[in-house]
Amino acid sequence: MTAQQTDVQTTHAITDVFEALRQGLLARDAVAICALYLPDALIFDLAPPLGKPIDEAELALWLSSWAGPVERQTRELRIAVSGDLAVANGFVHISAPTHEGELAAWWMRTTTLLQRRDGRWLIAHEHESVPFAMDGSDRALMNLEPEAV
Amino acid sequence: MTAQQTDVQTTHAITDVFEALRQGLLARDAVAICALYLPDALIFDLAPPLGKPIDEAELALWLSSWAGPVERQTRELRIAVSGDLAVANGFVHISAPTHEGELAAWWMRTTTLLQRRDGRWLIAHEHESVPFAMDGSDRALMNLEPEAV
Repeated sequence: MTAQQTDVQTTHAITDVFEALRQGLLARDAVAICALYLPDALIFDLAPPLGKPIDEAELALWLSSWAGPVERQTRELRIAVSGDLAVANGFVHISAPTHEGELAAWWMRTTTLLQRRDGRWLIAHEHESVPFAMDGSDRALMNLEPEAV
Repeated sequence: MTAQQTDVQTTHAITDVFEALRQGLLARDAVAICALYLPDALIFDLAPPLGKPIDEAELALWLSSWAGPVERQTRELRIAVSGDLAVANGFVHISAPTHEGELAAWWMRTTTLLQRRDGRWLIAHEHESVPFAMDGSDRALMNLEPEAV
């Protein structure tokens, strides 16, 4: 097997993790989503605190706060791999129906660290955020779209 | 050289990058700071837009917006390395004097991707953020402190 073939296979294995995450959000299945993370995964989330472990009960509560499937799309996902370590960064669009009958949607940035354990790629660290306004309001900017970088 | 020795040397080489970043901020030296980044480094910053390239002129402007040294301290920095790829994540405390005679200070999260090019570790991607309040105000939370995770 050439190094290039290995790279293609590894990249596919990693995009498979994100596809499984997308499916898990659509199905609002906290158990399936948490199975994609290492038990000691460190999460830097949109919500406080600054850092927290992955938490199935909290995720299930968040998923049930929506009235239907949570759609997740990625744009400009860059994947770097070396051995059993991989990093993916890019832009994520989330849209989901609220219990009030509206559609909530926003773009955010994601930087995800994956590690291969026993041949399986799992999320070891996830950092998701939006910037905030520098006009003195400190308002989180949920209405931005990715621009060409 | 054993693999363990290599790991220790690599970890030192990476912490050296962060020490150089700390010194560059203290000296408010945009040229020295930008030399730690790959020319095509992708930055996810506290300020909009969602993503941007490293920009020396913008950084110099930001540094001159303070009245004195910008102090940067890290806590719970976790470093994962494989080959020429490294990822560091943790908490960063920034404090700096304003032109109005006050001291601004905040904690944020950082996830930094480094790549080794020609034997030298450089920052390829930096994601810095704070969470925001989920009370409807969408206010960025600049007053949080890291908790034990």
